[in-house]
Amino acid sequence: MLVGVGLMPHGNPVLEPEDEETKRLAEVLREIGEKFRDVDAYILISPHNVRMSDHLGIVLAENLVSWLGFEGKEIPGEWKTDRELAERIYQAEKEAGMPVVDLNFASLRGEYSRWPLSWGELIPLNFLDKKPLVLITPTREVSRETLVKFGEVLGDVIESAEKRIVLIVSADHGHAHDENGPYGLRKESETYDRLIMELINENRLEELLRVPEELVRNALVDSYWQMLIMLGAMRKAEFELKESAYACPTYFGMAGALWVRKG
Amino acid sequence: MLVGVGLMPHGNPVLEPEDEETKRLAEVLREIGEKFRDVDAYILISPHNVRMSDHLGIVLAENLVSWLGFEGKEIPGEWKTDRELAERIYQAEKEAGMPVVDLNFASLRGEYSRWPLSWGELIPLNFLDKKPLVLITPTREVSRETLVKFGEVLGDVIESAEKRIVLIVSADHGHAHDENGPYGLRKESETYDRLIMELINENRLEELLRVPEELVRNALVDSYWQMLIMLGAMRKAEFELKESAYACPTYFGMAGALWVRKG
Repeated sequence: MLVGVGLMPHGNPVLEPEDEETKRLAEVLREIGEKFRDVDAYILISPHNVRMSDHLGIVLAENLVSWLGFEGKEIPGEWKTDRELAERIYQAEKEAGMPVVDLNFASLRGEYSRWPLSWGELIPLNFLDKKPLVLITPTREVSRETLVKFGEVLGDVIESAEKRIVLIVSADHGHAHDENGPYGLRKESETYDRLIMELINENRLEELLRVPEELVRNALVDSYWQMLIMLGAMRKAEFELKESAYACPTYFGMAGALWVRKG
Repeated sequence: MLVGVGLMPHGNPVLEPEDEETKRLAEVLREIGEKFRDVDAYILISPHNVRMSDHLGIVLAENLVSWLGFEGKEIPGEWKTDRELAERIYQAEKEAGMPVVDLNFASLRGEYSRWPLSWGELIPLNFLDKKPLVLITPTREVSRETLVKFGEVLGDVIESAEKRIVLIVSADHGHAHDENGPYGLRKESETYDRLIMELINENRLEELLRVPEELVRNALVDSYWQMLIMLGAMRKAEFELKESAYACPTYFGMAGALWVRKG
């Protein structure tokens, strides 16, 4: 059963927030961790793990191991894959005709079945209690409908599971908020980020499907595709937004949102 | 142009060989390194990197980084991907309808575009001069014809390249050679290994396609699938076997073979 959803950023500033907005965002992230302390497993979708042009990935490797921090910010740790859940998701997505691959490394089982984690996973995980995980990697070169459908199939598997499961979506938004940043200043980053926060706060997530492709591309985001998967999964039950926050302390926008299943 | 092919094991014993057979095998591996010292790039097929059930992978990540040794035997180092060649191979395989994905990690370009290496790559690389690489991962749940075809497409791309390229196939053979080993003793491991060495030494590689499926499965090998890719690539030119050796100092069989393009 999908008991809740957390949208979490993966930018270093939330680890040591300096301004008030970022402190508030970090507080929401801690609340996500607190709220979901008693669940059985997380499903984590991250845009900074394996990146394939036109296939999604389900990590089956048993051991998930910290490997790559951003700008020297290392977060050591090891996590376990919920292998049974990962296999069920992979099989269901395959059967539904989704463009998906199972991802293992070195060995199929045991201590050498390992998988590297980057800041894209480690920063959200830093705010969560250690639980078994299923790591999923999104892709950009498939249709929006495919991503939503992938999420719906994912939602069906979660709903049919005995376990209490949370979906964690790792995402940062526009990356062109600072004229001195690596991507410069683009109006589209501001427009996209404001729109995303409106859709979240006004319970209008279905409108994600109507965000213009040009805006998504020009805003330089790494949130849109995994949010479409989230949308598909969230169609399978009713959720209530409990908290949300946005901050942009450097060149990229970060959002946090906590949804809890209704009833 | 494909200037040669090296079949290389990835078992720790070749790093510090103790018996005469393994010393001879290590000598052949050093000769492979010596012979190909002046080439421009290696294409390395390894069964102990990413493992996907029914898709082959082409690593596009720019930096290939030592990550995982076997039984504590670490071989540090970093290599660069020949990105242009990797992209050409990926595109050609996609256009040929092959089940293939491009593999990147964390970032699409630059210092954070990184990929982990295991003993499956590091042990062969230990015997080779440092060159740009294209890392390819095989798969087991596709037809033999698909693997050979993948190799043929790979061979076409290599042949059309200006660069002097070597194909390195990382492979160990039967894993049930020792009743006290992790997989026990199976007659099929001995049968398979003897057959493979015959096919190599008697220039009968085409007969790989006639090895019974049951023998491949029961011998517990991790060589067969990447050797079919090798077979496909080697169909694109004429090669002469210069050296070969076999050793089985522990529970798994290891083979080395050096082929050089004729004329």
